[in-house]
Amino acid sequence: MKEPYDFRTANLLGHDEQQRRLGPLRKAMSDAGFRAALVNTPANLYYLTGRVYRGYLYIAADSETVHYLVRRPNHLEGDGVHLIGKPAEINGVLADAGVPVGTEVALELGSMSYDDAMRLSRVLGLDAPSGDISPLLRAVRAVKTDAELKMLRMSGQRQTLVYERIPHLYREGMSDIEFQIEIERASRLGGCLGQFRVAGSEMEIFMGNVLTGENADTPSPYDFAMGGAGLGPSLPVGADGTIIRPGIPVMVDVNGNYTGYMTDMTRCYVCGTPNEEAVRANQLSVDICSELAGMMTPGAAASDLYHRAVEMATAAGLESNFMGHRSHAGFVGHGVGIEINELPVIAPRSRDILQAGNVIALEPKFVIPGLGAVGVENTYIVRDSGPAERITNAPQNIISLD
Amino acid sequence: MKEPYDFRTANLLGHDEQQRRLGPLRKAMSDAGFRAALVNTPANLYYLTGRVYRGYLYIAADSETVHYLVRRPNHLEGDGVHLIGKPAEINGVLADAGVPVGTEVALELGSMSYDDAMRLSRVLGLDAPSGDISPLLRAVRAVKTDAELKMLRMSGQRQTLVYERIPHLYREGMSDIEFQIEIERASRLGGCLGQFRVAGSEMEIFMGNVLTGENADTPSPYDFAMGGAGLGPSLPVGADGTIIRPGIPVMVDVNGNYTGYMTDMTRCYVCGTPNEEAVRANQLSVDICSELAGMMTPGAAASDLYHRAVEMATAAGLESNFMGHRSHAGFVGHGVGIEINELPVIAPRSRDILQAGNVIALEPKFVIPGLGAVGVENTYIVRDSGPAERITNAPQNIISLD
Repeated sequence: MKEPYDFRTANLLGHDEQQRRLGPLRKAMSDAGFRAALVNTPANLYYLTGRVYRGYLYIAADSETVHYLVRRPNHLEGDGVHLIGKPAEINGVLADAGVPVGTEVALELGSMSYDDAMRLSRVLGLDAPSGDISPLLRAVRAVKTDAELKMLRMSGQRQTLVYERIPHLYREGMSDIEFQIEIERASRLGGCLGQFRVAGSEMEIFMGNVLTGENADTPSPYDFAMGGAGLGPSLPVGADGTIIRPGIPVMVDVNGNYTGYMTDMTRCYVCGTPNEEAVRANQLSVDICSELAGMMTPGAAASDLYHRAVEMATAAGLESNFMGHRSHAGFVGHGVGIEINELPVIAPRSRDILQAGNVIALEPKFVIPGLGAVGVENTYIVRDSGPAERITNAPQNIISLD
Repeated sequence: MKEPYDFRTANLLGHDEQQRRLGPLRKAMSDAGFRAALVNTPANLYYLTGRVYRGYLYIAADSETVHYLVRRPNHLEGDGVHLIGKPAEINGVLADAGVPVGTEVALELGSMSYDDAMRLSRVLGLDAPSGDISPLLRAVRAVKTDAELKMLRMSGQRQTLVYERIPHLYREGMSDIEFQIEIERASRLGGCLGQFRVAGSEMEIFMGNVLTGENADTPSPYDFAMGGAGLGPSLPVGADGTIIRPGIPVMVDVNGNYTGYMTDMTRCYVCGTPNEEAVRANQLSVDICSELAGMMTPGAAASDLYHRAVEMATAAGLESNFMGHRSHAGFVGHGVGIEINELPVIAPRSRDILQAGNVIALEPKFVIPGLGAVGVENTYIVRDSGPAERITNAPQNIISLD
């Protein structure tokens, strides 16, 4: 279950893989007129070094060399590693390392707090931040390297193995949350890291979402595809203690973070015979996934994918149930990788154009009053040509719990 | 297990309890010269309304009336609720509601991203944010109301019940992570919400930390008391798959969020006979907790508590093992409530002075080479007088797993 790693090595990617990620970022920096950048969020440090540390990564647009400005842990080693006690030491450490420190250093302004951004800017000799590296990182991370795709395929395989065990975890009389807890345990025993990395501070969830019956129609504050009242008002999303009833589907959408990279998969289960309407809506969800997978080639417009999904839902008379019922999510898919909400976004007003190496979760789901949530979610890799590669391969029909 | 709540009601606290929280905040706003504020983080919305929603809470220093500017969910009801589609509508909605909208609106600049803060400021007609409500909220939240203390005591009771089950979850040959997974399941079945709310973006953890043997001496990037290599470099903290060996203690520090409010408790377990050194260090940890609990009265300086703990560790010859060995944490305790890292901070340079209603987790822990991590953690309520009230009451000795 453990993935051994050298916890002293600052760059766990190795030189070549790191440069494969830095190359497009440095080009984007040049295009944006940014001479240098400091990266500090766990997600982006993991992307650019293969590990999380507390501190900063200094990147220059015109140099392959990076500098690791490390606050913790204090044992990191490697070329360009500099231990610092506080951000105020950054300028001096870089100057000592022969880096021509100027004032133009872009920061992660999309995630760094206003207070931290102002404090760090002052350290760099500025009155205010001079550039925002966040959108560049989001764009570069949307196109995965082969090494990243390998980790995503591995997460998909492990998540599929766990999903295939789900029917065996159900016991008669269970509530949604009791069922979820057994799925959480099976996931963790299967190597799931548990952590659900989300960009931004407005989305909160624990391990995923198991929904059955009317609870699926309770709108949530969060920007997830589905809602649910949750167990209390401090985290109002997901399972609420509803007992699982014969004929009423249970939708399972739990954490696929097995490698630091997440796949996203949803399947439905039922004890007894599933209602015909549920079977029909689930099949429509599978069909929309297949249709969109065929359209997911480089150059395709994300908005076209969304509109095609709506068209198919409308043709089946399920337009008002698509992506919710009392409340509707405004997308049908999203990029996924280190975080659950990456680019591209498959939404009506998205301007994203698909590229080879995009990894996209499609989740055309339906909420049917009296029945609850039905549908599947799959994660795909956009290839150079042909339909996208599905990497979440558990059976897609409504699975029997009997 | 479920706590039923009316998911349509915007203010789940009721008028009186909400005013008990708003009162000190409005006074702090007046003292700081802030006329109004917009609050938007899940933690602070939960604090001020009893629920999480996506949007803003508008607070005026000179008025008991608040306005709920709600983006999601779209069904919220109550006095002062205004549904908005995007932040740009805030000014118009408030003007329509008769609020004299000026330009001086403080924001949560300690958590809101720089980009969001600038965007929201422009919406409010400003070139840059005019005030920071974050430190005021942190200070107000450090003194809990009776209703909050009730929820914290309830979390402590539920967490204690789960901890008392822990010895029964161990099976011979288990690894640290296998043991942790069973503790996670027992916690969740006991009502744990799972979510680990942390202020800021630099600390990441999933459900807690189970450490045994040398792994406890692997420094982590995060600002937790203890480290551990974790299962991989994307989340380098905690259990790493080490097999639990006879005589080697296992330290368990898992999530106490049973009510939206978290208690923090750590206990140690061992199969076979615990090493004498481990027993002695654990007893010292218990003794430091008792000593500091006696000192935790209103007016006490947080730094004095820290220094007393170091003094006791030094007297016992365990100074170099205190709060880590290869890497040392710079504190011995921290405020806890909706988030795990609240005020006051029990650290050498802390200027915090204790007040009645503070809730503080003390975790005087030791890392002993060859043995691992030993010690306890307890959560306390600071009272008007006398020793602090301990609300995490599982037995404190090293518990046998046999």
